[in-house]
Amino acid sequence: MKNRIDRLFEYIAMANKKVDCVLVSRASFPDINFFYFSNASGGLFDGGFLLLYPDGSSKLFTSGMEQEAAEKSNGDFEIFVYNSRDEKVRLLREHIKGDNLGFSFSSIAYLEVEKLKETFKGNLVDVTKEIMYTRAIKDRDEIKQIRKASEITSKTFSHVPQMLEDGMTETELSLKIEFDLRNNGASSLSYESIVAFGANSSLPHYESSSSELKPGDFVLLDFAGKYNRYCSDMTRTFFFRSASHEQKMIYDTVLEAQMIGLDALIPGAIAKDVHDAVAKFIDSTKYKGKFIHSLGHGIGLETHDALGLSPISDYPIEENMVFTVEPGVYIPGFGGVRIEDTVVVRKGEPEILTNYTKDLMVI
Amino acid sequence: MKNRIDRLFEYIAMANKKVDCVLVSRASFPDINFFYFSNASGGLFDGGFLLLYPDGSSKLFTSGMEQEAAEKSNGDFEIFVYNSRDEKVRLLREHIKGDNLGFSFSSIAYLEVEKLKETFKGNLVDVTKEIMYTRAIKDRDEIKQIRKASEITSKTFSHVPQMLEDGMTETELSLKIEFDLRNNGASSLSYESIVAFGANSSLPHYESSSSELKPGDFVLLDFAGKYNRYCSDMTRTFFFRSASHEQKMIYDTVLEAQMIGLDALIPGAIAKDVHDAVAKFIDSTKYKGKFIHSLGHGIGLETHDALGLSPISDYPIEENMVFTVEPGVYIPGFGGVRIEDTVVVRKGEPEILTNYTKDLMVI
Repeated sequence: MKNRIDRLFEYIAMANKKVDCVLVSRASFPDINFFYFSNASGGLFDGGFLLLYPDGSSKLFTSGMEQEAAEKSNGDFEIFVYNSRDEKVRLLREHIKGDNLGFSFSSIAYLEVEKLKETFKGNLVDVTKEIMYTRAIKDRDEIKQIRKASEITSKTFSHVPQMLEDGMTETELSLKIEFDLRNNGASSLSYESIVAFGANSSLPHYESSSSELKPGDFVLLDFAGKYNRYCSDMTRTFFFRSASHEQKMIYDTVLEAQMIGLDALIPGAIAKDVHDAVAKFIDSTKYKGKFIHSLGHGIGLETHDALGLSPISDYPIEENMVFTVEPGVYIPGFGGVRIEDTVVVRKGEPEILTNYTKDLMVI
Repeated sequence: MKNRIDRLFEYIAMANKKVDCVLVSRASFPDINFFYFSNASGGLFDGGFLLLYPDGSSKLFTSGMEQEAAEKSNGDFEIFVYNSRDEKVRLLREHIKGDNLGFSFSSIAYLEVEKLKETFKGNLVDVTKEIMYTRAIKDRDEIKQIRKASEITSKTFSHVPQMLEDGMTETELSLKIEFDLRNNGASSLSYESIVAFGANSSLPHYESSSSELKPGDFVLLDFAGKYNRYCSDMTRTFFFRSASHEQKMIYDTVLEAQMIGLDALIPGAIAKDVHDAVAKFIDSTKYKGKFIHSLGHGIGLETHDALGLSPISDYPIEENMVFTVEPGVYIPGFGGVRIEDTVVVRKGEPEILTNYTKDLMVI
């Protein structure tokens, strides 16, 4: 696979955009694209920036504070150091090439662009889509890291049945889960864990509370570990001691929905059609209208990485894209079920990276 | 203390800015100001937004997905729900009052503003500074939460001496520390922990590696827990088994520098003077030029919260601002020392929230 910068400029050329140089700034926002294109292994580089050129080369600009981190980093970039705002502006002016500067309009603060316009009088070109497409297709090294993160996560899911105890709080379970993730080798959490008992499971973005586990509860668990800078994402919904007929019906519906989603996720499919196939199925059941979010999202350096599987995703699925597939049914006041895997798009069926049973589990 | 929205509009009036309504958006960026002004206790509200009005009232706009979370939240706002991009734009148009819309130019993506301009033809007014000043002065509830986070962190620091073992890796120590933080009640980490042995301590933003602890090493530890949504921040530098004359000299210099910083941090002082007093002191020693970052930063909902103690901070310090005070001396290839506390500005001396000894410790 070509290097990331080469691929970016190919997408830019395919879109018939004229760009002489691309800016990736870490001023104001911690734009993760900085790490994607620099592959810098250490450092934070707050306020720093990258310039990427059509010949595949790049330059990294950092304050003196992180010069050593930049030098020790694995990245394939030239390093420039500034020690004041004036020096930074001078370097920016000196190294921006040509009259057409590309950057992601959605990854840079309005203020930064207003300031940039004082220095740079050429054309500003939005390359958000081209960066997203570049990032959406993962290279071998990225998939390796997401696979490792997913293995760590799956291992912790397999330990959950031994963790559940009558009367334990959501927060207690959350703590046990996070210890286990770190013990399995997670460098940190991909996102704040969702541990929802009973009716709390009807809130897709619930935060854990002191609610206590009781027989008959839904146990919706959405948590995952990171490995190096890469994320995984996984959800399972268990039942504690017993599952009612209604709970089982919801579970079976969501599981079938997920299978439909996985089957539809093949190279060449249009992303929104994958979402729509699942939504249409759920809307054909008694749970019509109860699937209230997108089917999935890209995952990689960020939990919500480039591209998604939503009703407005109008691009074709390609090999080596990595997505979550996570349908759910949510009944306010009663509870919800979500089943989620992290998967790699392959020629035939997607490869599931988060491997733990999806059979209905009464624990 | 007046409510947060009232205080914001007071700062806006003091700056002679004309603003009829303030927008806080969670589109593109996870702007934490959303949680500050809504005080929403749950939910994520990606893509949602708030409108704040001069009478102190506010409206929260969310997708249907988080309607339940919004309704269950503790916030004092009216709730509006959209289920499509068109509905969102219609609501935005309907509820923006007047011709002068304020928002933080540095907390919103360039793209969002370009889109907003299609809907809103009035004046755009940057209220970044006014939001920062509002957030910089913490109310009682905020200080309570930062104090609790700091207590959790300090407790873990007091457990560090029992954790250190010959030959352990930075990553192993980091894991022990994080377990302890969560055990003490941290909801999550304030930031990725820095555990640096030996010469690694000369990198201010070092990430842990498999480096092993050996006698004579610097042990620079910069970690902290969060409590609810609030952060703490703390650094101590220990010595393993022995400390050389040079290491002790560096330590004593940094400790004296921190005392100078704390003494200077009083209401009415200009923030940059606090930094300068410390930098001037370090530059008067043999470690001239080895203090390579700002003295500190505001802390609260974010680890790097509103305002800082840097050479360009030209505002007056006020009571109830919360800062870190964290001088350091870094010798590339040899090692570094940083000593950091989270403190509240009080009438006399600042109140130190992170309480663990700063005596030179050979463990």
